[in-house]
Amino acid sequence: MATSVIQYVLRRLRDIGVTDVFGVPGDYAFPVNDAICNEPGLRWIGCCNELSAAYAAEGYARIRGVGALCTTYGVGELSAINGVAGAYAEHLPVFHLVGAPNVAIQESRALMHHTLGNGEYDLFRRMSEPVVCAHAVMTPQNVAYETERLIAEALYHLRPVYMVFPADLASAPVAGEARAIASPQSDPDALAHVSEVIVEAIDKARSACVLPGVLIARAGLQPALHELIAVSGLPFATMFMDKSVLDETHPCYVGMYDGALMQPEVRAFVEEADQVLAIGTLMTDFNTGAFTSRLDPARTISIGKHRVRVGDKTFFNAELGDLLKSLTSRLSRRDWPKIAPKRLGKATGAGDDKIDAAALYPRLAGFLRENDILFAETGTTSMGLGFAQMPSGANFYNQTLWGSIGWATPAAFGASIAAPERRVVLLTGDGAHQFTVQEISQFARYGRKPIVFVVNNSGYLIERLLCREPGIAYNDIAPWRYSLLPQAFGCDGWFSARVETCAEFDQALEAASHAETGVYIEIVTDAYAASDLATKMHQTFRKLYE
Amino acid sequence: MATSVIQYVLRRLRDIGVTDVFGVPGDYAFPVNDAICNEPGLRWIGCCNELSAAYAAEGYARIRGVGALCTTYGVGELSAINGVAGAYAEHLPVFHLVGAPNVAIQESRALMHHTLGNGEYDLFRRMSEPVVCAHAVMTPQNVAYETERLIAEALYHLRPVYMVFPADLASAPVAGEARAIASPQSDPDALAHVSEVIVEAIDKARSACVLPGVLIARAGLQPALHELIAVSGLPFATMFMDKSVLDETHPCYVGMYDGALMQPEVRAFVEEADQVLAIGTLMTDFNTGAFTSRLDPARTISIGKHRVRVGDKTFFNAELGDLLKSLTSRLSRRDWPKIAPKRLGKATGAGDDKIDAAALYPRLAGFLRENDILFAETGTTSMGLGFAQMPSGANFYNQTLWGSIGWATPAAFGASIAAPERRVVLLTGDGAHQFTVQEISQFARYGRKPIVFVVNNSGYLIERLLCREPGIAYNDIAPWRYSLLPQAFGCDGWFSARVETCAEFDQALEAASHAETGVYIEIVTDAYAASDLATKMHQTFRKLYE
Repeated sequence: MATSVIQYVLRRLRDIGVTDVFGVPGDYAFPVNDAICNEPGLRWIGCCNELSAAYAAEGYARIRGVGALCTTYGVGELSAINGVAGAYAEHLPVFHLVGAPNVAIQESRALMHHTLGNGEYDLFRRMSEPVVCAHAVMTPQNVAYETERLIAEALYHLRPVYMVFPADLASAPVAGEARAIASPQSDPDALAHVSEVIVEAIDKARSACVLPGVLIARAGLQPALHELIAVSGLPFATMFMDKSVLDETHPCYVGMYDGALMQPEVRAFVEEADQVLAIGTLMTDFNTGAFTSRLDPARTISIGKHRVRVGDKTFFNAELGDLLKSLTSRLSRRDWPKIAPKRLGKATGAGDDKIDAAALYPRLAGFLRENDILFAETGTTSMGLGFAQMPSGANFYNQTLWGSIGWATPAAFGASIAAPERRVVLLTGDGAHQFTVQEISQFARYGRKPIVFVVNNSGYLIERLLCREPGIAYNDIAPWRYSLLPQAFGCDGWFSARVETCAEFDQALEAASHAETGVYIEIVTDAYAASDLATKMHQTFRKLYE
Repeated sequence: MATSVIQYVLRRLRDIGVTDVFGVPGDYAFPVNDAICNEPGLRWIGCCNELSAAYAAEGYARIRGVGALCTTYGVGELSAINGVAGAYAEHLPVFHLVGAPNVAIQESRALMHHTLGNGEYDLFRRMSEPVVCAHAVMTPQNVAYETERLIAEALYHLRPVYMVFPADLASAPVAGEARAIASPQSDPDALAHVSEVIVEAIDKARSACVLPGVLIARAGLQPALHELIAVSGLPFATMFMDKSVLDETHPCYVGMYDGALMQPEVRAFVEEADQVLAIGTLMTDFNTGAFTSRLDPARTISIGKHRVRVGDKTFFNAELGDLLKSLTSRLSRRDWPKIAPKRLGKATGAGDDKIDAAALYPRLAGFLRENDILFAETGTTSMGLGFAQMPSGANFYNQTLWGSIGWATPAAFGASIAAPERRVVLLTGDGAHQFTVQEISQFARYGRKPIVFVVNNSGYLIERLLCREPGIAYNDIAPWRYSLLPQAFGCDGWFSARVETCAEFDQALEAASHAETGVYIEIVTDAYAASDLATKMHQTFRKLYE
């Protein structure tokens, strides 16, 4: 049988590493849904709603480098659009496959369900345009070359793309063919030149610090950067969005750099270094301590994915991966000045003591193991655990730029599908968890065994810390009995607990560390139990908005 | 103190009937959130997420004629956008208030959280454009006249509007003033002329039937149309989206008209009438029995909100409300031929019998009371109950055109806030309920006492009936213990039950009918227990898509 339009796309996605597609089915998308279920080597992963499916695909892409979700026309794709926008902001190549009505229906301007009733059929694609790097209506005539173009764009920009399949065309046989588009190559002379400029600057420096950025992880270049660090002995500090891009147990690691907000010794080390190499970093508000970082442009080398800036000069035609290799071959080991990274310190509290921030975050830090995948939700919880030192091979994931609360629960689910052999730990706050709580049920449905920590502090704590009247009504949320949720959601056999004291917490952590099931622990704290960073944000928040 | 930009808007919204604003707070929206909480006569109603807030505002607007939601920039507004699109399709004036970063931040193109990190600040307003009838960036200079324009547009088109408030401008004092814009008036000559044309056509007819449409309800013209029916004695039949627009216990009611799919006697009555008066109807797929209705244009008068069509002639400048009054004054009572409406019939099954469609829907129909507000979710459940006769004063709400599953749970919550004195009944399927289940907790938080029926048929039944392989994996969902959810969600004291047999169901209904608390009943049926209409859809579904 001839390959159909949708089969062609699915096979190419499988080639580049997508083996699971998250989604919610819908009538206009049946040909796409059917093809996913019937394609060898691909799995349909159902989610409770489309926004969760988008978050799950985004979390999957953090592990796999690529992800995919499938929704139906109108209602489905628009529900997912915030999750797709998040993948754009966070530089994750997520393929959004949308099923649409037949071409004949579209041309007749019929008043079909899931339309606005105005006969317009191209509006939703247009709505997606700003949050993807490329998009296409897939047809038998264009599917071969459009698929190659969309894959190339997604991988080059590390951004999502949008593909819509009119139902009749999805199952039609492919007409035409195309070859995969090679990723852009560096110009050898340009590469050699910029490498020399950088090496010369480093050679002159008495002190230096690398800032490894999130784009390194997104582009799959962690091994290459690890190699550069190993060869050169250069120290590195990490900004929030970039946490765990390089291993935090590495002897060259000096700590978390968060502008003037936290850890003044790391700030001094970075800002006073003769050379800072920012490699694949994004200088966003929450990545720079609310713009309190002060990097002297004359002493900063910024290496982007396709562009390098040294002092006031910009260099093109040197791709990030090629440049890392080139630098690794030119640098030699030196005994660079370093400082020792700080840990969170020992957990306080015992027995019947309530759980405050000093009791909470060091305990969570101590619970983490090598190779854990940690999803830390936007808000006070990630700010608390962000300054813990991650064990070797462990990943810390946070949506630092887009910051859509509710993201972490489905994103952790997506990661658990992407890496079934690794332990997935989810840390979320009560307010954020309420956005997308139902996806807890998908972990159990698909046989995953996450460790879930929900900090119950009776409301949106980060909002309380940033608004004018912390106790104002909009910061309150519905009072749930979180620890009863796993049973209601069909998570059979999970270990579930609600802890209010340090002793209860210690006991639950001990049980969780040996559990062979999913674990769900509700940690009750005071409404204002905030970590140091969250408290600093509270003290300086006007800086952020003015 | 001078009135601020946001205060001006909120006071005008209160003037037109908005006393509650649904939303989720966020840092860029704090000035808007604060103003809502501090404005006398307005209440902030928190929801678990923004899509739910949009659905809730949409449900509220079904009762009150207007609704409002408030979200933050980017993450918040995009999460809500599918709900806003639904308000557009379903003709509901919902005001979407969005808080955005300060103007200075926007102009500096700073890399702030909740942006795409590309320095663009006007993208999300553009994304909302296709799903609202008007939009504006609110400033001190334009707030007075833009507010009047947006209110006028929303009420004229019965569609949502979008208003974005840069945080610094929201609190700035209003500069300028404006008067409310009067709604458009009919031209007296045009109105008299079209009235005469219509009355003449009706006078000549030996048989006639009114099809009262959903726009009658949206425009608040139910009393006017009831009066026309009372004066003329004209019979009326109702299409699905229009159900309960006029009272179904009225002696002129002849039944549900669903093209060739259901109730052939109603079809014959309508399609063979000498004159059909479709008043404020939308001829969409699910409103016409998947386009199987056959109304002869030569014998059909279509009265829209601003336009009338009689045979092949179109008449302008006669507004719907004026025309109803004019016709009422010109028509006299006749003894029109009628047929008696069918009811669902007696419920089958007893004792240990399983609950099938014939046992389920008649029991639910019998449970309904006068003045109930029923929200019936898109899918097989609404198809089942759609052919029940509603008690006097009771409303049946369904999102027939947009059909976004998950809508019903938060929309019912919105209605319960809009009409605290009325009983709210929610009927949903398991698959749909999973989309937005957490909003169950808001009923309890705000002291509402709904009656919730969740039909647990182990998956997306409507999808099973419409796709090629009913048992395919994507139609399955996570197996929940629904009846445990109210306790987990903090719905203290609610009556909750899981019923698998007719006897259990009868017992639960009896308890529910006397309950003075919220009620949550999980009704377990076979995976394929489908109503007549759903079964017909299954048999004829290819017609819908080709």
